[in-house]
Amino acid sequence: MSAPTERITIKDVAAAAGVSKGAVSLAFNNKPGVSEATRERIFAVARELGWAPNSSARSLSRQAVDTIGLAICRPARLLGLEPFYMEFISGIESVLAERDCSLLLRLVGSVEEEIQLQERWWRERQIGGSILVDLRQDDPRIAPLRKSGLPAVAVGHPSLTGGFPSVWTDDATAVGEAVRYLAALGHRRIARVGGPTGLGHSAIRTEAFEAVMAELGLGPGVHVETGFSGEEGARATRSLLLSSNRPTAIVYDNDIMAVAGLGVATEMGVSIPDELSLLAWDDSQLCRLTHPTLSAMSHDVHSFGAQVTRVLFDVIAGQEAVSQPAALPQLVPRGSTAPPRS
Amino acid sequence: MSAPTERITIKDVAAAAGVSKGAVSLAFNNKPGVSEATRERIFAVARELGWAPNSSARSLSRQAVDTIGLAICRPARLLGLEPFYMEFISGIESVLAERDCSLLLRLVGSVEEEIQLQERWWRERQIGGSILVDLRQDDPRIAPLRKSGLPAVAVGHPSLTGGFPSVWTDDATAVGEAVRYLAALGHRRIARVGGPTGLGHSAIRTEAFEAVMAELGLGPGVHVETGFSGEEGARATRSLLLSSNRPTAIVYDNDIMAVAGLGVATEMGVSIPDELSLLAWDDSQLCRLTHPTLSAMSHDVHSFGAQVTRVLFDVIAGQEAVSQPAALPQLVPRGSTAPPRS
Repeated sequence: MSAPTERITIKDVAAAAGVSKGAVSLAFNNKPGVSEATRERIFAVARELGWAPNSSARSLSRQAVDTIGLAICRPARLLGLEPFYMEFISGIESVLAERDCSLLLRLVGSVEEEIQLQERWWRERQIGGSILVDLRQDDPRIAPLRKSGLPAVAVGHPSLTGGFPSVWTDDATAVGEAVRYLAALGHRRIARVGGPTGLGHSAIRTEAFEAVMAELGLGPGVHVETGFSGEEGARATRSLLLSSNRPTAIVYDNDIMAVAGLGVATEMGVSIPDELSLLAWDDSQLCRLTHPTLSAMSHDVHSFGAQVTRVLFDVIAGQEAVSQPAALPQLVPRGSTAPPRS
Repeated sequence: MSAPTERITIKDVAAAAGVSKGAVSLAFNNKPGVSEATRERIFAVARELGWAPNSSARSLSRQAVDTIGLAICRPARLLGLEPFYMEFISGIESVLAERDCSLLLRLVGSVEEEIQLQERWWRERQIGGSILVDLRQDDPRIAPLRKSGLPAVAVGHPSLTGGFPSVWTDDATAVGEAVRYLAALGHRRIARVGGPTGLGHSAIRTEAFEAVMAELGLGPGVHVETGFSGEEGARATRSLLLSSNRPTAIVYDNDIMAVAGLGVATEMGVSIPDELSLLAWDDSQLCRLTHPTLSAMSHDVHSFGAQVTRVLFDVIAGQEAVSQPAALPQLVPRGSTAPPRS
């Protein structure tokens, strides 16, 4: 793999920005001596020309990009329990392996911490580019990271990613399909156990859920917000099953909460799928291992991670990177969904 | 955090090795011009003095070690399905976060590939040290990586780790406890669904299983070897339940296979725990989400990852790193184990 860095020099950047080579160096080493405005201009020019400082670590390496970054803002303990991230990372790694590249992985405690980290990774050229995940509405990472010139791909709907090339799952359409399927089976009381509203894709799903329920004349639909853990999925299911207007079908936002829901239903003597239909999301291996097996919106998370990484390499190579949807999740009916008995 | 690199210079290393500064530089940049014997002597001296080349990337960074390495030799797709690794990584990350360090993660296709990768990471000072996992018997990584001077901690019994400081789980004792517990409940036909024999810890568990079964007068015990996937766990369980000498209890080597075993038993109408006891291993969140809940040998994988990382930082700091066992897995009896009915 060859990159533009091998053709453009610091001299070209300095000339294009109308500054000295020393000023470019100061800007990229984050040293005082250049104004903020000049620094920004230098970064913008360097990004436009596809230039990056040729640090000694980089020159030791035979190729321009050998590392990409990923920061995840979730508690360490929770991460281990979420099949999504490990499958996503395994997809990233499958593309990195082809290019002899590695992933620099970091758990951060806040978005602010992530901004500082990504800026430093990029300034010190520890990474050639980064994948931004868990995009929020009005995500605070976008402005400073765009300014820094970090080549990045954002995972999330283009309405959330503010100019970064993005790869996203069409969650609104997928939620619509899930609800229509359950409605077609005859369900009218459909509930949803979703993720935190602060996350952009959770908000999009919630809005789509309410819209399609209303469209089908099924009211707004009951929606319980969780933090994605199995414990919360169990608690939400228990509370839904104890409610006066008990649902006959529940859609979960991930697999682990659906597995937990199945456990709660079995514990409460609620027969699946006769008395209650359950629909999982992501369709990791887990869905095929339970009894009954779990119907799911199947999302090839591994391929999704691989696709995001390929787009990132386009961005790094200075090619026109095109924001693109991932394959639409497919409904996979299994043993946990059926027409309601009553 | 300050490291010895700030005190010792390349001049000291050259003097101690009896070579020129240029020769030290050639050796560390992996360039021709120094013999293999000289290169090794230089590496040995540098390791002894705690010296590392001060690359520009490193000098930009405010601390000596900001990255550690982890290479995992498992197929990318399988990794996403194994709760162990994500919890282990989350434990590593919890310690790295305290020190403002990141993890360089790579999936490799073979041990040979890992050796080259780790050597390059270390030579180019992309990492300050590494964690070696999935130790095999007579592991081919040990000799070349010892020679390279890479600071590393190996995850595995000291009998497998050839001089690298190690952190390990006392698998033999844990397997003994699992089998004795089932025997105390009255089980006599106990089977085990284990991992691949090529992995050191699987071999240790298999040997311990056979030894304790023999000691209790229960014969050698049936043992099925798998690659740790849920599908294989399901297949192994089905074949054990169809065998003429059907077991009344099964011990699994991870959680996902135990969940799969529970699914198979339910599908075959075998009542858990009345007709069959199941014991999982690792005790991830999954074990508490099924119904019945899964009894398990509980192993705090997150804390294990954190402990390994702390020992690695001792090694990197040049302190006497002491090989140490992790906390012994604890038996957590839940709903999937009971005395055999007959």
